[in-house]
Amino acid sequence: MSTVIKSNQIILAIDPGYDRIGFAVLTGARSSPKLITMGCLTTNRADTHNERLNDIAVGVKKLIATHHPTIAAVEQLFFSRNVKTALKVAEARGVIMNTLTNCKLPIQEFSPQAVKIAATGSGSADKKQVLKMLKLIFKSNDISAQDDAADALSLALCVITQNK
Amino acid sequence: MSTVIKSNQIILAIDPGYDRIGFAVLTGARSSPKLITMGCLTTNRADTHNERLNDIAVGVKKLIATHHPTIAAVEQLFFSRNVKTALKVAEARGVIMNTLTNCKLPIQEFSPQAVKIAATGSGSADKKQVLKMLKLIFKSNDISAQDDAADALSLALCVITQNK
Repeated sequence: MSTVIKSNQIILAIDPGYDRIGFAVLTGARSSPKLITMGCLTTNRADTHNERLNDIAVGVKKLIATHHPTIAAVEQLFFSRNVKTALKVAEARGVIMNTLTNCKLPIQEFSPQAVKIAATGSGSADKKQVLKMLKLIFKSNDISAQDDAADALSLALCVITQNK
Repeated sequence: MSTVIKSNQIILAIDPGYDRIGFAVLTGARSSPKLITMGCLTTNRADTHNERLNDIAVGVKKLIATHHPTIAAVEQLFFSRNVKTALKVAEARGVIMNTLTNCKLPIQEFSPQAVKIAATGSGSADKKQVLKMLKLIFKSNDISAQDDAADALSLALCVITQNK
């Protein structure tokens, strides 16, 4: 893909989940990406399914209102062996996609493999390798070790590097 | 479940799908349910995934604006063998659930088995049996033979009969 991402773009990347939804907000050019924030939205296991889906929508809207992203990235789903969990994550992903659309944000989708390539150059890298490279790229040891947030940061890098 | 459904409730029932989304709008008491309308929303295979999800949200909002339902019902997902399709339907279901929530509609969820029981008294009824009973219940041969719409009509019956 040859889309040119301007260095003043603000990227909101979201790693879909049901219990935990990783996110990262990034700006800057390919040569000097700048991390604005990263973390996880969480939903409460004591809530109903519908309340949890709605909490995700509210959380995404708050991220948009706070950081004013100009483009969004959402990771594609991997076909999990745990279908029951996968269906819940897929419902959450639908909510995330539609909330971004309602907020008029253009969305790019990337495969899990592309996300790993963006951070490490390898589609088969493990989570440790991804985290190590993220710390090098962002010259920081403060990159969260939370898997979901690190995945979202790699996903944001996809938008800059355009590894589809 | 012992919730009492008032006869002036307007029920919007939705059978989640990705290509086709069955819906039915129903009112009346258990002894005399009245069909307002039923049919299918469809999404265009030529559109992007995100456009199709958004079309579903727009379609659901239009149904609400037209029929002013007071309660919604959404069928729970069955764990399909076709995981790829199931994930897309699950994303669509997330969009449907959250659109109903955004429109302040209370939502009830029913299993596929409960939906069959509501129409036929049997959780193992086939589609033909369901359709036959729907025609009897609504004293009409005009009940659509479209599976998705008929499923939505059975789902609406669940709200009245409260087979959970």
